Amino acid sequence: MAYRETEKMRLRKAEVRQRILSCAHQCVAEGGFRNAQINQVAEMAGVATGTVYRHFESKAELFAEVFRIATQREVDKVGEALAGDGSAPERLERALRQFAERALHGPVMAWALIAEPVDPQVEGERLTYRRAYAEYFEQAIGEGIGEGSLPAQDARLSATCLVGAIAESLVGPLSPTQQTPQQDRPDAFDDRQIKALVEPIIDFCLQGVTGQRRKLS
Amino acid sequence: MAYRETEKMRLRKAEVRQRILSCAHQCVAEGGFRNAQINQVAEMAGVATGTVYRHFESKAELFAEVFRIATQREVDKVGEALAGDGSAPERLERALRQFAERALHGPVMAWALIAEPVDPQVEGERLTYRRAYAEYFEQAIGEGIGEGSLPAQDARLSATCLVGAIAESLVGPLSPTQQTPQQDRPDAFDDRQIKALVEPIIDFCLQGVTGQRRKLS
Repeated sequence: MAYRETEKMRLRKAEVRQRILSCAHQCVAEGGFRNAQINQVAEMAGVATGTVYRHFESKAELFAEVFRIATQREVDKVGEALAGDGSAPERLERALRQFAERALHGPVMAWALIAEPVDPQVEGERLTYRRAYAEYFEQAIGEGIGEGSLPAQDARLSATCLVGAIAESLVGPLSPTQQTPQQDRPDAFDDRQIKALVEPIIDFCLQGVTGQRRKLS
Repeated sequence: MAYRETEKMRLRKAEVRQRILSCAHQCVAEGGFRNAQINQVAEMAGVATGTVYRHFESKAELFAEVFRIATQREVDKVGEALAGDGSAPERLERALRQFAERALHGPVMAWALIAEPVDPQVEGERLTYRRAYAEYFEQAIGEGIGEGSLPAQDARLSATCLVGAIAESLVGPLSPTQQTPQQDRPDAFDDRQIKALVEPIIDFCLQGVTGQRRKLS
């Protein structure tokens, strides 16, 4: 009699896979990709190491999946922030602020997603996702030019400039070398620190697309 | 009698090392880090593969050295461009233009240095060098604030925004996927293409630091 996977077994398998992914995500959020280990993930998920490998071919594949899911979530958030009400500069400001604030509230994960040196495979995915961010920004800039809230410009190049500016300016603050080594888990930034970092970055980015001095809020 | 390295032998060794590095540089400039192979480097340099390994412990070490030398040259060029005459915005414009034009004139090498997915070791070096670029820009922005040619701003954050904006906006144009695959060696961009890419990038970057619409030249 051929083996048949029942619906219950299928659901159970999907649930285990999801739990492994959640635990792997938590590992990365606590110590970056570099410190994330399969046996630690297995222990957290309450499964044998071999079970992890039944769901994911390799460590690289598991953490590439963690990377994709977490990055897609950030890309979606940027898309949502840009889709709301307001002029293009207002929507861009909202999206940039949200991206930066989310990163600074989860600095280890943000570092892992944005800049941690990783395998070339994950690095390749990074380039793909940065293109996805840029496409959202490009659309908003194009709308701004159309509605007259932004001056004529190469929307595609300005969009990639935005992506680069915000990612690179967060790399330093997010870098683990700037965090106190004696802490098991680096603190999130407090509100004052976040404001001191985010406002100048938004100044630069909005001025880049508007060509006007941003008014202090 | 103990073996003594004569001056002549020492020079000969240094010359071979330099030739290996030059050939490795040429390999990367033609096909990126991904396609660069030790045996190809050895053949070009006219030495045995074993000789390459007498000078460099591993393939990774050889190409990390190629990366460092080539990137340091670009960092130095930015430093020189910023050190010349003119107001801070003029000097920043000169440095940004030179960085972008040099990249577009040698697109394969520039892609390899800026964005090609590479080993985490080289990726780590990239972060270090991006800090070096940012320090040069930070100094110029600080001088601009001091002389009144730039408005008050967080010079350090604006500098990292500049580095990110120019690097990220070049990633698309430099990416091998945007180049025709049938060419053995991708063409450099022509003058018209370079202008169409560089001017919008400089617009964004200068507007970011000045808060004023850049006048068309």
